Amino acid sequence: MSESVAWVAVDWGTSNLRAWTIDATGNVLGSRTSPKGMGKLTREDYPAALADLLTDVPLDGPTDVLVCGMAGARQGWLEAPYLEAPTDLSGLIRGAVHPDSGSADLRVSILPGVCQRQGGDNVMRGEETQLLGLAATLPGYRGLVCMPGTHSKWAMLEGTRIAHFTTAMTGEMFELLSTHSVLRHSLGGDLSGEVRNEGFKAGAGDGLSHPADLLGQLFRVRASALISGREPAWCAGYLSGLLIGTEIAANRHQIGNDPVPLIGSHTLCALYAQVLEMAGATGRPVDATAVVLAGLKSAREAA
Amino acid sequence: MSESVAWVAVDWGTSNLRAWTIDATGNVLGSRTSPKGMGKLTREDYPAALADLLTDVPLDGPTDVLVCGMAGARQGWLEAPYLEAPTDLSGLIRGAVHPDSGSADLRVSILPGVCQRQGGDNVMRGEETQLLGLAATLPGYRGLVCMPGTHSKWAMLEGTRIAHFTTAMTGEMFELLSTHSVLRHSLGGDLSGEVRNEGFKAGAGDGLSHPADLLGQLFRVRASALISGREPAWCAGYLSGLLIGTEIAANRHQIGNDPVPLIGSHTLCALYAQVLEMAGATGRPVDATAVVLAGLKSAREAA
Repeated sequence: MSESVAWVAVDWGTSNLRAWTIDATGNVLGSRTSPKGMGKLTREDYPAALADLLTDVPLDGPTDVLVCGMAGARQGWLEAPYLEAPTDLSGLIRGAVHPDSGSADLRVSILPGVCQRQGGDNVMRGEETQLLGLAATLPGYRGLVCMPGTHSKWAMLEGTRIAHFTTAMTGEMFELLSTHSVLRHSLGGDLSGEVRNEGFKAGAGDGLSHPADLLGQLFRVRASALISGREPAWCAGYLSGLLIGTEIAANRHQIGNDPVPLIGSHTLCALYAQVLEMAGATGRPVDATAVVLAGLKSAREAA
Repeated sequence: MSESVAWVAVDWGTSNLRAWTIDATGNVLGSRTSPKGMGKLTREDYPAALADLLTDVPLDGPTDVLVCGMAGARQGWLEAPYLEAPTDLSGLIRGAVHPDSGSADLRVSILPGVCQRQGGDNVMRGEETQLLGLAATLPGYRGLVCMPGTHSKWAMLEGTRIAHFTTAMTGEMFELLSTHSVLRHSLGGDLSGEVRNEGFKAGAGDGLSHPADLLGQLFRVRASALISGREPAWCAGYLSGLLIGTEIAANRHQIGNDPVPLIGSHTLCALYAQVLEMAGATGRPVDATAVVLAGLKSAREAA
């Protein structure tokens, strides 16, 4: 006795594609995931990728599919031009574009991202929908929101309005340094052990204390291994802590007394919360999937 | 009527091997270069690499070969344990080690590098010899010395004494970001054109003004290309300037009124001099080959 699908919510990122079928009262009926992220697709691949993902979904005639994320990038399915910050995210749906899905039953809308020119060029795609969802989850929240990841976003939210935002390349930097730099020789070991956590705290402390000297602090990972015999797990923790500490130090002045909502993976949010505490602030991990769904729902309701 | 070779000076780095034949009065008779740097050699390869390089050098019996650089690293020919800073570099020769060259005619000594434990773990190999050479070239110089490169060194020199030093991963970071990061899509173009220089100045200004926000500023390279239509050459210049500006800002407080000696490639030293001026300081490019030779000579004379 399955409920019928009223619409489909889609988060189409660079690496993955996720879809949720939703009934008329807003309940999630089911979810699907595919590795067909924007990074692996040409423009022509999108209709089939979506159809494949939804192949077993029983549709009662033409159904809305609301998409956020990189599918709306210039190199995605169809470009959804950015809204420009400061902007009210409740207007996201008015910037949606409508690619041809190749099927009369799938009426696709792709939400725009947000760009910023005043106060520093910046862009986001996908996070704006999570922020709209956060505004629905924490009504009236005014303050900084941290979204840790490959490219961490820090957004100043005022209800559903995004005032300004920045992007820190922290996650990508960790990957680059771990994979390709001279530091890779010094890294390794258990991802969750005590030695790694010791290194993490030391790195976070150095990052919080000396954010202007990141280029110099980084080399200490290597030097610590060479002359102080630091273990690979300690060094890996140190590098992670140093980068997160440096990122948080750069944003510390914008953090008020409220806990900072953290939207991202559980592991990453826990690490950010740990460093926020070291900085005399507090983090409040928020379920990332819940807020993207809430955001798509809010956008749809504003239509 | 060639002068006879009194000794051989060698700079054995990670990427290259350079040798100079020197006569009894200290004149350079000739020079040779090989791509057989430490990075390409196993321990067993060193004797042949050296013999090959010197194969056409007429030797008057057993000849000293004085080596600085990575040949003395743990993963090099024979480890020359670090001297520990603060230390007087005129004592370098006393820390030299003597690997078996496999030839009775080549008496090899490898100079040690310098490490630091107090005030931050750090290491150098090769730069200490350049610093000793600088002390001979600018007798009595007291102040900061900047050695731009893959891993830039900033050393506080007091005559022949090295008080402390730091390492900034600036050059490696530029390579990593240009080659492997999301920023690579936005970079390119002429290496010396006016557009690149415009970007360089903008990046250096941002780096000097906001050194604590490097992780955030980096993403602006991408965002500027996406939403402000910045050209690849501008973005490449911006990235270079941002990294160098950030590095110089972190060291600015240690710079006094004297021009900062700059030891490195001509191109890089010119860029650092440009940013030092933007920071209200002055750079003084010094010939890198001249100081490494002067350093090896000073070390030998102290024997």
